[in-house]
Amino acid sequence: MKVSPLAPTFYPEIPEIEGVRLASVEAGIKYKDRKDLCLIAFDKPAEIAGVFTKSKCPSAPVDWCRKHLGQGKASCVVINSGNANAFTGKKGADAAELTASTTAQLLGCSKKTVFLASTGVIGEPLDASGFADCLATAKSQLTLDGWHSAAQTIMTTDTYPKLATRQFKAGGRNFTLNGIAKGSGMIAPDMATMLSFLVTDLPVDHKVLQKLLARAIKPTFNAITVDSDTSTSDTVLLFSAGDGKNIKQANDERLRPLKSALAEVLHDLAMQVVRDGEGANKHVCIEVTGAANKRSARKIAASVANSPLVKTAIAGEDANWGRIIMAVGKAGEPAERDLLSIKFGDIIVARNGERDPDYNEDEVSRLMQKPEIDISIDLGLGKGSAKVWTCDLTREYVAINGDYRS
Amino acid sequence: MKVSPLAPTFYPEIPEIEGVRLASVEAGIKYKDRKDLCLIAFDKPAEIAGVFTKSKCPSAPVDWCRKHLGQGKASCVVINSGNANAFTGKKGADAAELTASTTAQLLGCSKKTVFLASTGVIGEPLDASGFADCLATAKSQLTLDGWHSAAQTIMTTDTYPKLATRQFKAGGRNFTLNGIAKGSGMIAPDMATMLSFLVTDLPVDHKVLQKLLARAIKPTFNAITVDSDTSTSDTVLLFSAGDGKNIKQANDERLRPLKSALAEVLHDLAMQVVRDGEGANKHVCIEVTGAANKRSARKIAASVANSPLVKTAIAGEDANWGRIIMAVGKAGEPAERDLLSIKFGDIIVARNGERDPDYNEDEVSRLMQKPEIDISIDLGLGKGSAKVWTCDLTREYVAINGDYRS
Repeated sequence: MKVSPLAPTFYPEIPEIEGVRLASVEAGIKYKDRKDLCLIAFDKPAEIAGVFTKSKCPSAPVDWCRKHLGQGKASCVVINSGNANAFTGKKGADAAELTASTTAQLLGCSKKTVFLASTGVIGEPLDASGFADCLATAKSQLTLDGWHSAAQTIMTTDTYPKLATRQFKAGGRNFTLNGIAKGSGMIAPDMATMLSFLVTDLPVDHKVLQKLLARAIKPTFNAITVDSDTSTSDTVLLFSAGDGKNIKQANDERLRPLKSALAEVLHDLAMQVVRDGEGANKHVCIEVTGAANKRSARKIAASVANSPLVKTAIAGEDANWGRIIMAVGKAGEPAERDLLSIKFGDIIVARNGERDPDYNEDEVSRLMQKPEIDISIDLGLGKGSAKVWTCDLTREYVAINGDYRS
Repeated sequence: MKVSPLAPTFYPEIPEIEGVRLASVEAGIKYKDRKDLCLIAFDKPAEIAGVFTKSKCPSAPVDWCRKHLGQGKASCVVINSGNANAFTGKKGADAAELTASTTAQLLGCSKKTVFLASTGVIGEPLDASGFADCLATAKSQLTLDGWHSAAQTIMTTDTYPKLATRQFKAGGRNFTLNGIAKGSGMIAPDMATMLSFLVTDLPVDHKVLQKLLARAIKPTFNAITVDSDTSTSDTVLLFSAGDGKNIKQANDERLRPLKSALAEVLHDLAMQVVRDGEGANKHVCIEVTGAANKRSARKIAASVANSPLVKTAIAGEDANWGRIIMAVGKAGEPAERDLLSIKFGDIIVARNGERDPDYNEDEVSRLMQKPEIDISIDLGLGKGSAKVWTCDLTREYVAINGDYRS
């Protein structure tokens, strides 16, 4: 498969985190000659936080994670690609249970501290009977520098692995936050989107960790959309695998740099997911300002970002702002046609309910040829603002998704 | 442009309706060498009912129609293609006013009884200064058998004209209901979709007519979707141009056959719109049963019908029911994975939360090659049911909408 034209030009060096080991192996779940099963294990139990899909039909691993998240401790996470173990009924729950208990036995931990994530085709039974051998191999290969391989292993229709890292100082010491993620279809805002796993060595209690993650996810993973479709398997897990006493107060000063790092890593990964949207040629930022309130701004931005007509126009490098009006109008939120203004990049194309008199089609057309497109919509009503990131809708999207399973 | 493979194999004969005259002329609004301005005139004022887009940014003609619908009388309707006169600010309102007053002067009627509809590009000013001459020509060419030409004149990206007719008996006399419509993009359920104009010669008061139309629109035009996008210009107008005393009681027996005819004509036109969906190769019916209630069933059916992943799978002739689960799950409505069952045509592919044990991929694949695909989803929860019709999402959709304006 052709690598996305929006792929990063280089991959970051992901530093090792003491006590966090990764291994990736071939389990032959669906793909041939590639790794598809990843184990991330903690030398001692890590604190865990998680956010999951809002789908009413979540996968068996999502059910499993939700059930055991509350106790806040994780020994490891097992991730497979090629099969989502979703809509697989009792068999699916059994496969999740089997994977967890097999792993628990291997690592000598409680199965309740084994977390799971699966991604790939929905509805096919996941045969986990061979996982014991694969996981034994994985255990023997656990290594501190397995991050890049892990990011590759969890890919499905992704065309490049997604990694991000930040270093930060807290209480006079150096800490790290590493993250990996996978896209690339069934990506929609307003829920914990796709799979992503993040680990920091700053020691933070799981309850505090959960608050940080829930807050940081909103303007990042929950503000991107590839195709408005929501996976049954969306899972973001954040682990604190640090030595020392856990931070238990949400107002602890040492959390401030972690919050910044978390915001940056999640933003970085979220942008990588959008830029690897199926068939994407353009990275688009929709910024709405002047809305009645923040919720309204988000809804309007999402309406524009999810509109097939807007997205196909961008694919065609056509600054068709009429379709933006259409998408603002259909959002059902307060909007006054005669107060609306629209910019592509820094160019005002419409204001006060009509085309800007100085509008220059050639100038805008040149802008539309760039790989990054910023669209700003000011409603002129209030102070609500929001950003949503998306990509264009291309023939390749249709080709990829018309042929994905067969 | 290639005609939709789902186009009708023949067009119905549209009978004349006494007192209803149509003319179509070339106004050169956008297209060359084709008619783009249509006048439908009533010998004596007709009763009128209308439903319009729910967009918060409606076009100037929609504003105009809404303003004058209440008095219930129509002398004529003027429809142009090539320019939607939407987001055109005061200029747009002026163009609508000018069109109405020019027509009123020509026909010798009040401008308040002139109704307007425009379809085409959004945001371009509509120059109506030349309409006086064009409408004078149209007036001189008004004819009882102008239905087919009118249906052609209002087309934009439609690949065929949309016409339907029914005859019915009421109070021992024969009556007719004729309708025309245009699609083909920006089609979404739950609002009065696209343009459609219907005329009957059964004399019915506009208040009763409005009730009939509002009710009949729900399971027809409001239950179709091409791309989930909602036009700024959606307008459906129903006229009663009959001689004799208007029916004023909603329970009048003579309305029963009109209701049936209206349901049939609207269904017929709505299906024609879906089958001419931009790039469509498949006509898809999504039927949801067993939902918590009707509203919930409609929302789930729309979620499936609007899902790009479901629609691209159908384009690829892939019975990817996993994506249907995904779309059910993302609707946010009550759904129990383990009670769900899914059928393609008569073939059960999934039940009780997993793939049906007798599922035969070859059998389903053969079914997917047909141009009409029925997908049934039973939620096993309650008695709510709904149908939504849609088409597949193809490379051609992207091509048409990436190049439409430029």
